[in-house]
Amino acid sequence: MKELRYFFTVIIIFVSCSVFASNAKDPLPSWNNSTSKQRIIKFVESVTNIKSQSYVPKAERIATFDNDGTLWVEKPMYPQILFSLDRMRELADLHPDWQTNQPYKDILTGEYKNILSNNAEIMFQESVKDMSPEGYKSIAYNWITENKNPRFNKAHIELIYQPMLEVMDYLRANGFSVYIVSGGIQDFIRAYALQAYKVPDEKVVGAVFDTNYKVTKDNEPYLVYENKFLIRCNYEGKPEAIHMFIGKKPIIAFGNSNGDKAMLDWTQSNDQKALMLLVHHDDAKREFAYDVNSKVGTFPKSLFDHAEKNNWQIISMKDDWKVVFPFELKKMNKKLLEAQHE
Amino acid sequence: MKELRYFFTVIIIFVSCSVFASNAKDPLPSWNNSTSKQRIIKFVESVTNIKSQSYVPKAERIATFDNDGTLWVEKPMYPQILFSLDRMRELADLHPDWQTNQPYKDILTGEYKNILSNNAEIMFQESVKDMSPEGYKSIAYNWITENKNPRFNKAHIELIYQPMLEVMDYLRANGFSVYIVSGGIQDFIRAYALQAYKVPDEKVVGAVFDTNYKVTKDNEPYLVYENKFLIRCNYEGKPEAIHMFIGKKPIIAFGNSNGDKAMLDWTQSNDQKALMLLVHHDDAKREFAYDVNSKVGTFPKSLFDHAEKNNWQIISMKDDWKVVFPFELKKMNKKLLEAQHE
Repeated sequence: MKELRYFFTVIIIFVSCSVFASNAKDPLPSWNNSTSKQRIIKFVESVTNIKSQSYVPKAERIATFDNDGTLWVEKPMYPQILFSLDRMRELADLHPDWQTNQPYKDILTGEYKNILSNNAEIMFQESVKDMSPEGYKSIAYNWITENKNPRFNKAHIELIYQPMLEVMDYLRANGFSVYIVSGGIQDFIRAYALQAYKVPDEKVVGAVFDTNYKVTKDNEPYLVYENKFLIRCNYEGKPEAIHMFIGKKPIIAFGNSNGDKAMLDWTQSNDQKALMLLVHHDDAKREFAYDVNSKVGTFPKSLFDHAEKNNWQIISMKDDWKVVFPFELKKMNKKLLEAQHE
Repeated sequence: MKELRYFFTVIIIFVSCSVFASNAKDPLPSWNNSTSKQRIIKFVESVTNIKSQSYVPKAERIATFDNDGTLWVEKPMYPQILFSLDRMRELADLHPDWQTNQPYKDILTGEYKNILSNNAEIMFQESVKDMSPEGYKSIAYNWITENKNPRFNKAHIELIYQPMLEVMDYLRANGFSVYIVSGGIQDFIRAYALQAYKVPDEKVVGAVFDTNYKVTKDNEPYLVYENKFLIRCNYEGKPEAIHMFIGKKPIIAFGNSNGDKAMLDWTQSNDQKALMLLVHHDDAKREFAYDVNSKVGTFPKSLFDHAEKNNWQIISMKDDWKVVFPFELKKMNKKLLEAQHE
């Protein structure tokens, strides 16, 4: 037994060192040295090398990332939906009519798995109704940091992908402007994006609720959400929003589902060298495995075909990522420390 | 005569030196040393001094500038209106019905002075109809750099305010993010904002036409304007757009008319120290003099009162600015060089 423990300690030290000791040189330590990693690094080196024919000036180094399923876990259901459902349940006491009126009754009593996209829209609207963006963001932040994903028993803010954090850092360090372009609600993402991804408010593009500017009796101005979407940022809405918010085409874009296809096509149409990547959730052991038949984060056969035809890179969670979540790094660190103190 | 010429040469050298020699130290050389300049510098020094109680971290140093009348000349008529009118005249051959149908007939035959805001909206729509943002920006850029303001016989892109260029440079050098927040059309401003103001596309907030994402037969994606406004960015629309595009309140904001009041109120409601400024066009000799009764860039009595009550700074073009336009600097430089070579 003692020999076995010794053996494992050595293995852990060896693995940990190989992950961390090379940190200074390796910008993507949580990635295995497979094609995905190689293509990302080769691309960045090529567009930042002023002697390269593919050189792109800093101002045009735009990177866009989808959020749900690309930067954080979207299963078993989009956190935005779970949050809005919780919010409606909290508000239900103020709306006795919801107990009998549809679709409210179905929403409150139903399983989240059965929530239709129509009902999702109503839930989103109810979850922001009469609120200021600041008030909404504060409630959303508490939920994102406290409510737990049932599969992992971890808060949603912990369930972000360590390899993608490294890519964002790597791109920023190379002069890229890193944006989130998500079908989720802009202010929901803003509630946690700076803390989780180091992405500031002005670089979060998402679905936008119309707001109304008002003034209190004491002449204090404030904004309040109107009960309707001003911008939907999914499918074709992504390039449209990219034009409005950024005004330039990305040169690198990450997605994971059909909702990201137009954004990646738009990126590919850039006159500059461009790289398009899709995260494939093929890791049931460490996260989830889903694609063609999933209602959440649908990755249909047609998208696989389109990606192959256009030389887009499919990122395999299973094969390309050494670790999935930041807390796995902490675990590894802890083991390393324990090993050193034995 | 010779003595007189000698005398003037000395004066020119003296004046020029006093303007330019101090450039290295003085961030705002085109400003007289009056209250406006002093307040801007005092404000910037205070929010950037980490030991100051008013210190503001870089990420929150948001500066917003109105465009028409704040950064460039808006008289005798907003350039956007003149451009759209020219555009409609160009397109008139393709629309024989415009010769008889209203309001097109009035627009095409009328004086720009009589164009009502309703008609302005129709003109804007016609000027973008069926176009891609890239195509529109290219036509707008040509117009802005070629069409001349009748008063100055200079292209519109030359009629930007030198003192404001210096303020923008000064703010950027002190870690501010400098945005334009204008009632004008976003892509019209983007057509020249980088060249004129060093403000990149992603920092131009303005009125937005809805776009549609389409794909050609050859699978090339493109955007085309829809014939309707998605976002209007004037009056209360300015703080609403600031929330959507930036997500943070400005700490310094510049405007020149009633359309900027809400933006400045919004800025003042910041928890951080904030400075609000309004350009007053009181210089008929060098530019234009207008305020209360002007239909373009209306600066009503109520705004003067509101500004005074709230300690907003009124910038007097006549008293606060040594020069108005960049080409005056060039003239001055030329005189200086000529004087040196005599």
